[in-house]
Amino acid sequence: MTTDPSRAVAAGSIAQWDHETDVAVIGFGAAGACAALEAARGGATVTLYEASSGSGGASAMSGGEIYLGGSGGTPAQRDAGFTDATEDLEAYLMMAGGPDADAAKVGLYARESLAHYEWLVAQGVPYKGTYVPGKVIEPETDDTLIYSGSEEAWPFSEKAKPAPRGHVIQYMGWGGGRLLVDTLEARAREAGVDVHIDARARALVRDEDGTVVGLIVREDGREKAVRARRGVVLATGGFCMNREMVRLHAPTALRCDSPIGTIDDGVGILMGQSVGARTIHMDQFFTTCPWYPPESLVKGIFVNAAGQRFINEDCYHGRVSRTIVDQPGKKVWLLVDNAIFARPMELARVDLTAVGETWEEVEAELGFVPGTLATSVAQYNAHAAGGVDPMWHKAPKWLKPLDEPPFAALEFDLDSSYFSFFTLGGLETLPTGEVLDMRGEAIPGLYAAGRVTCGLPRWGAGYSSGMSLADCTFFGRMAGKSVAARGADTALAAE
Amino acid sequence: MTTDPSRAVAAGSIAQWDHETDVAVIGFGAAGACAALEAARGGATVTLYEASSGSGGASAMSGGEIYLGGSGGTPAQRDAGFTDATEDLEAYLMMAGGPDADAAKVGLYARESLAHYEWLVAQGVPYKGTYVPGKVIEPETDDTLIYSGSEEAWPFSEKAKPAPRGHVIQYMGWGGGRLLVDTLEARAREAGVDVHIDARARALVRDEDGTVVGLIVREDGREKAVRARRGVVLATGGFCMNREMVRLHAPTALRCDSPIGTIDDGVGILMGQSVGARTIHMDQFFTTCPWYPPESLVKGIFVNAAGQRFINEDCYHGRVSRTIVDQPGKKVWLLVDNAIFARPMELARVDLTAVGETWEEVEAELGFVPGTLATSVAQYNAHAAGGVDPMWHKAPKWLKPLDEPPFAALEFDLDSSYFSFFTLGGLETLPTGEVLDMRGEAIPGLYAAGRVTCGLPRWGAGYSSGMSLADCTFFGRMAGKSVAARGADTALAAE
Repeated sequence: MTTDPSRAVAAGSIAQWDHETDVAVIGFGAAGACAALEAARGGATVTLYEASSGSGGASAMSGGEIYLGGSGGTPAQRDAGFTDATEDLEAYLMMAGGPDADAAKVGLYARESLAHYEWLVAQGVPYKGTYVPGKVIEPETDDTLIYSGSEEAWPFSEKAKPAPRGHVIQYMGWGGGRLLVDTLEARAREAGVDVHIDARARALVRDEDGTVVGLIVREDGREKAVRARRGVVLATGGFCMNREMVRLHAPTALRCDSPIGTIDDGVGILMGQSVGARTIHMDQFFTTCPWYPPESLVKGIFVNAAGQRFINEDCYHGRVSRTIVDQPGKKVWLLVDNAIFARPMELARVDLTAVGETWEEVEAELGFVPGTLATSVAQYNAHAAGGVDPMWHKAPKWLKPLDEPPFAALEFDLDSSYFSFFTLGGLETLPTGEVLDMRGEAIPGLYAAGRVTCGLPRWGAGYSSGMSLADCTFFGRMAGKSVAARGADTALAAE
Repeated sequence: MTTDPSRAVAAGSIAQWDHETDVAVIGFGAAGACAALEAARGGATVTLYEASSGSGGASAMSGGEIYLGGSGGTPAQRDAGFTDATEDLEAYLMMAGGPDADAAKVGLYARESLAHYEWLVAQGVPYKGTYVPGKVIEPETDDTLIYSGSEEAWPFSEKAKPAPRGHVIQYMGWGGGRLLVDTLEARAREAGVDVHIDARARALVRDEDGTVVGLIVREDGREKAVRARRGVVLATGGFCMNREMVRLHAPTALRCDSPIGTIDDGVGILMGQSVGARTIHMDQFFTTCPWYPPESLVKGIFVNAAGQRFINEDCYHGRVSRTIVDQPGKKVWLLVDNAIFARPMELARVDLTAVGETWEEVEAELGFVPGTLATSVAQYNAHAAGGVDPMWHKAPKWLKPLDEPPFAALEFDLDSSYFSFFTLGGLETLPTGEVLDMRGEAIPGLYAAGRVTCGLPRWGAGYSSGMSLADCTFFGRMAGKSVAARGADTALAAE
């Protein structure tokens, strides 16, 4: 059998199924784990196929941070003195979703987010419950709660009451995503999910009506036909590792050098398309360069090659970074004075390229047109001294004139600095996880969750840490519940 | 029969064909006309289906301008004293195509462009042959040749020797696109193309191997099955009139109010996808606000809401406009002094919103932060006096200090000014017009040309006038030749 992910196999061509299951889940990151778990608890037999040699996916490469709140607040939020109305979470997520935010998914998630937190805790995901104030990417400690987006920054702060919503798994330092997936894996296995590793999905199988009824998997050196009586869940991740797909759909992301992914080759998107699924917002991607901490740097200002500021520096690092990628040329500079000077973490690969006793010296050393960079600083300083940033609306707490020499410029170079990225476009799905066709109608038997879909996060300039894992875990669960329920009906009808 | 463009019909379900032809062309704009004509001349019987009541499409709404040059120059170029090397045309088109320019199409078109000009003339497309210098959108007269892109502007001018390449059909005033299509229609009919108007393509028909073998057309109040022995050519235009598709794929274009299209509902894209075609660069769109002529305005400077310049104003109006759409907020201003003041044409819906004896007055009247707009002007003036624009590289001929009061600001408001747009993403095709599937392999029997494809023009910031009609006419021809040739082989094989 010669299979290709972009060619669905006709069920009629399958002489004999090698394996039968109610639900087949493809991919064992957080989305696949949650889908498998809920499907199993929904009464389905579940087989999970993972192409690599273990669970993880891009989820395990993350900090294990989930964007949670609403309904008055999670215990961690309330303990830290924050309330978080569902309406504020919803308003924030709608803004973060950009010009085509998914109102149905956002609304559902905002209402159910607190319950989702409780579910995660019930699965054994540990949360210390403690809040870390300030501008951090992830806690260096094992604390729980941080501001992980642009909640306190303009324009988000004007339309949604800010609250910290980044809930980080209790894990010392960065990298708690591994523990998150391990925890979910344990529950999935306990629930009876039959896990196959080193088993690469090769193609979907559909019947004459267009219903997805199984898949072809390469396992043990051969291709096997798997019947999935209730349906197939795609949880294969995005396409950041597939350079051709990035070029064809999101070529701006090629300015960023470091895809965050394991396999993430877009195979699930191709499989979805092979049965008529619609992809949306394929140009969108998240990127970030970890330019803070230390948070004193947030008091600096970014300028582009024309010496112009271009954003309020107190918004989320990924929003700043996404805007950097759109600037003319390949470099921007973060300008700091002696009072706030610090080096970004080594990971960022950001160099100190100019130091001077005056801003004019820095400007000249960098080869800027005279009066550009220095004028931007002078304007900023005059406003900052008055506690306002009338053009870019950085919040007063981060405003400080950059007037204590020596002055310095930290250089961000797209050709050498660390700009990680992953893709946000993908299959269009309902909140139930049902995959939609070109008409916007559900394809029977096909479900998807996580970065193979275009989910809650779908706009690079709006991404906030924890949004992708929120989407993976919550809508992974929805997909698992849906496929199990459909299966039950279908099974009855078939008896 | 209930058909849907996004669901291909199985050939096996067709009890009887209502009509048989070698080649079916869908859509009667410039791309469809050229495809039909070349297919007929290639020895195929050709039936052309047009959903509306006559030929035209978006092509007929245009100025009938085609981007042509290379091989030393067209007669019009040479008569005006320009030479145009193939390498320069190719270099320009590669830059204009953006980060994923199609090198194969660009290379072929650059080599064949002069021959294409001669072909157009041979079809009866009239060219007066006369050059109109300056920054114009289309000649107000019946002249032929203009600079229709950013050829003389940075950064294009640094990498490709400039030449005017916009070849406008001889037609008094704007709107020669109608005459262009009429001319091509006449040749197509003479060549024996069987034209069906008021005949809406509803779905493609494919056989078990995935070969496209026909289509379903709604005509005379019923759906008819049409067998296309050699293949089907999609020439149905883009999707700018389909607001849902724009929202799902190119939501930034929703900032622009005026789609340029007739039907242009994306139906050909859906039909292509129904047989496994790949779409690429669906986020890209052309937009323009006709902010010049008069060309004296090119000596003004644009500033955004932060009072910053953001582009060299001497590049193509569409490149400026596309960049305007990406600025923060919804307004930008063109700053002019008394020496260059003029009103843009009424069509642009651009208001004069501030006048002052000093730039500080204008700045205050517009409510800008003090020292922003005025500083940008002062910097520009200082450089312009020296004949340089070190930050944005406007060419010296357009540099003039804005220092003759009174001063004025022309306001471009995305909510009220005229920003036309059309889409540039679509089906991926080979230079032959063959439509590619998800693996990048040709789908047998399916061809496409024009804005249903992602062609020469595929990057909003690189579009130049005449690129789309160049793509429609030339690659329409290629598709027609290819389908006729394939047909011949297939017919032989089938005998």
